[in-house]
Amino acid sequence: MSEQERRIPEATVARLPVYLRCLVELADERTPTISSERLADMAGVNAAKVRKDLSYLGSYGTRGVGYDVEFLLYQMSRELGLTQDWPVVVAGVGNLGQALANYGGFTDRGFPVGALVDVDPDKVGTSIAGVIVRHLDELPELVASKGIAIGIIATPPTAAQSVAEKMVEAGIGSILNFSPSVLGLDPEVSVRKVDLAVELQILSFYRRRADGPASLGPDGPQR
Amino acid sequence: MSEQERRIPEATVARLPVYLRCLVELADERTPTISSERLADMAGVNAAKVRKDLSYLGSYGTRGVGYDVEFLLYQMSRELGLTQDWPVVVAGVGNLGQALANYGGFTDRGFPVGALVDVDPDKVGTSIAGVIVRHLDELPELVASKGIAIGIIATPPTAAQSVAEKMVEAGIGSILNFSPSVLGLDPEVSVRKVDLAVELQILSFYRRRADGPASLGPDGPQR
Repeated sequence: MSEQERRIPEATVARLPVYLRCLVELADERTPTISSERLADMAGVNAAKVRKDLSYLGSYGTRGVGYDVEFLLYQMSRELGLTQDWPVVVAGVGNLGQALANYGGFTDRGFPVGALVDVDPDKVGTSIAGVIVRHLDELPELVASKGIAIGIIATPPTAAQSVAEKMVEAGIGSILNFSPSVLGLDPEVSVRKVDLAVELQILSFYRRRADGPASLGPDGPQR
Repeated sequence: MSEQERRIPEATVARLPVYLRCLVELADERTPTISSERLADMAGVNAAKVRKDLSYLGSYGTRGVGYDVEFLLYQMSRELGLTQDWPVVVAGVGNLGQALANYGGFTDRGFPVGALVDVDPDKVGTSIAGVIVRHLDELPELVASKGIAIGIIATPPTAAQSVAEKMVEAGIGSILNFSPSVLGLDPEVSVRKVDLAVELQILSFYRRRADGPASLGPDGPQR
């Protein structure tokens, strides 16, 4: 990397996890190299975009051979900060919070659930997926002692803003918001909002097209 | 629309729900018109892309005025198939399935939970968010009687493939897969996979950058 890190466009960043998932599959199958065309197919984007995206990581592949899967996987993991663990705290252990705490996919991917917090006295002290639920007020100590990097909000919408503020006060700089509310926070805090209805809207787009008189055939996304 | 519907790129389709959310906010605030620049800001993309995306819907805005919010909202909803309801079935009523069944956001957005199915005799017959859990074997009748359009898989990964096949046999053509498994289905079936770890990976990218010596400042996404 040169003296200044390149600015990677946000849209490229959003595609990196998709490439990563493809590369993990390829590495599992012991595929040594991959062409930009095949990676593009797997990721559901076009090959020119794959080449452009990977060039931001400093990866250019070898003409006629493609990219080395293991090396690209390493580069991608490093770029995504996945060569280290980022413990998360889940705030709110209703059904969604419990589902997230039990979701094996987080730990596997380097995001172990380091802490769970709630304000309900019936929940504080119980154990979910091996983690004891603590009171929200203990957040600052938990962040410090467990090295929490990311806060996940799974509270009712009415509590989301105050919980987010408590996370920021406790030193958390990255928040994943599952509640339907929009958070107003210092712009230095990275916030991503997960909207579970978005994927349904995308499906309904393809569904409507398929039902319509001018059907375009089976052009829905396959992954 | 002309004699042939335009082919809308997949990346554009994926952004339509984001624009839709912005437009709903604007309409709620009674904002009559919006420039491509402001919509771009709200949606976190650049203005040229907004104009290009909206041109696929046949919307070009008015120079110096922008786009009519109400009309654009109507167009977008129609394009996304949201002018009608698409009832969904949730298969698997563990924590995630229960969280999804209780997630008010689906009904509000035109995706009422029409049915819940499971195979666990302790769950079949119970009621979640006002919907009685039925046995997976009853899926064909439920699809027909409730007009189910979309299947949501919230089962353990080992059950996902067989549940997906049962959904397709029952006439469901669109599936949203929350389980970590990859489904092998007829290419005519639209499948979208929700990977809850992707957003964490994107956050860790920005986090790593912020921690690094060559910090780029607060350039994380804000929505």
